[in-house]
Amino acid sequence: MTNPTAAMIVIGDEILSGRTRDSNMHHLARALTKVGIDLGEVRVISDDREAIVGAVTALSAAYTHVFTSGGIGPTHDDITADCVAAAFGAAIDVRDDARALLQAHYDRQGVEFNDARKRMARIPDGATLIENPVSIAPGFTMKNVHVMAGVPAVFEAMVASILPTLTGGAPLLSQNLRVERGEGEIAGPLAELAGEFSDLSIGSYPYQRNGVYGANIVIRGQDGARVDAAMTRLCEMFPG
Amino acid sequence: MTNPTAAMIVIGDEILSGRTRDSNMHHLARALTKVGIDLGEVRVISDDREAIVGAVTALSAAYTHVFTSGGIGPTHDDITADCVAAAFGAAIDVRDDARALLQAHYDRQGVEFNDARKRMARIPDGATLIENPVSIAPGFTMKNVHVMAGVPAVFEAMVASILPTLTGGAPLLSQNLRVERGEGEIAGPLAELAGEFSDLSIGSYPYQRNGVYGANIVIRGQDGARVDAAMTRLCEMFPG
Repeated sequence: MTNPTAAMIVIGDEILSGRTRDSNMHHLARALTKVGIDLGEVRVISDDREAIVGAVTALSAAYTHVFTSGGIGPTHDDITADCVAAAFGAAIDVRDDARALLQAHYDRQGVEFNDARKRMARIPDGATLIENPVSIAPGFTMKNVHVMAGVPAVFEAMVASILPTLTGGAPLLSQNLRVERGEGEIAGPLAELAGEFSDLSIGSYPYQRNGVYGANIVIRGQDGARVDAAMTRLCEMFPG
Repeated sequence: MTNPTAAMIVIGDEILSGRTRDSNMHHLARALTKVGIDLGEVRVISDDREAIVGAVTALSAAYTHVFTSGGIGPTHDDITADCVAAAFGAAIDVRDDARALLQAHYDRQGVEFNDARKRMARIPDGATLIENPVSIAPGFTMKNVHVMAGVPAVFEAMVASILPTLTGGAPLLSQNLRVERGEGEIAGPLAELAGEFSDLSIGSYPYQRNGVYGANIVIRGQDGARVDAAMTRLCEMFPG
């Protein structure tokens, strides 16, 4: 059985200019791996209408799910919701369900529900809301695209809201062996192992620490017994 | 004058599975911003031939420069060099100049220059080498695609080798004001400012720290006087 697939779109000039270090990609990658959804691609793009519409159109056609991060706040540079609506040819306006959530929230806080804040209730026709327990302003799911905030605490809360509603697959199991030898030395035996266990993914991730070269050999697959068998062979190849 | 543009391709299943947190993107983003090359897009893709050839083909046509990270080591899963050659229809084999560099290196170390290590001397016809002072095995530039290693220390050394050889543009200047108010409050005045200074990029990056909402307002542009003028107006809008 093949797992559902996913792509992620990180929207933000601040990542591309190097001002901010993205952390949402790593969080989502780990969360998806746990539930057996295979993250196949991530694109980091700028706060630009054409770029966002293009990425949403391309990736929503190619993957089971698309997750976006960023650009759904109240300021002029928050254009993600409108772009996702445009990508699907859907109308978008302030929607009653989202407005009611925010109205109640701002009433409780005694804060004016002004025009800028109303922007956060702009939801495309046909989308369902994604709960945001942190700061209330919801994300939304439009077709197979899950639109979430960029602030890590809010992004993570939205991922926790949406993931349990999606059908996962077989979680990817992985085992790891650290070998303190240069990759040039282990590459031959490793290629043999990869040939023998062609149903698994066997990756070599080199590192250099205090002048010592080594590699983490990672064996991944959905069948635990096969992963075990490959790891046993690997340990025989590189004892100690 | 428009700055040269760039895209980055991060090649690695280990990033997409969440096993490893990428740091090369952030490093390159900062380095490019400093020399006035505008990073427009980053794609993180898997160690998959079709994915790599597709991304190289699409992005090398769309941007002045493409930088890749990962997949040029000696192991069976290192397929980037072959994929870049394929994307440009170039032949690839062990090349004398790269072989000589590695041969000398392994001779000095008294280590066998075996078949796996020779894989690292596979360079497409017509490419020029990128120096690697850390671990010798070179990267290469094929047309407008700069192919570099994934290990951060090696990636960073290769970036330092290649960047001085590229023509940059006007460095992007930026100023930053932290405003301790929710974005819903500052969005109105900020949109006005963005309208008034439409030659600049004005971004709002919200944060939440110890329950306090605020935003970093970042003003970016190539004309220092304009950035100064916009920052002066911004400070008048949000004094203190």
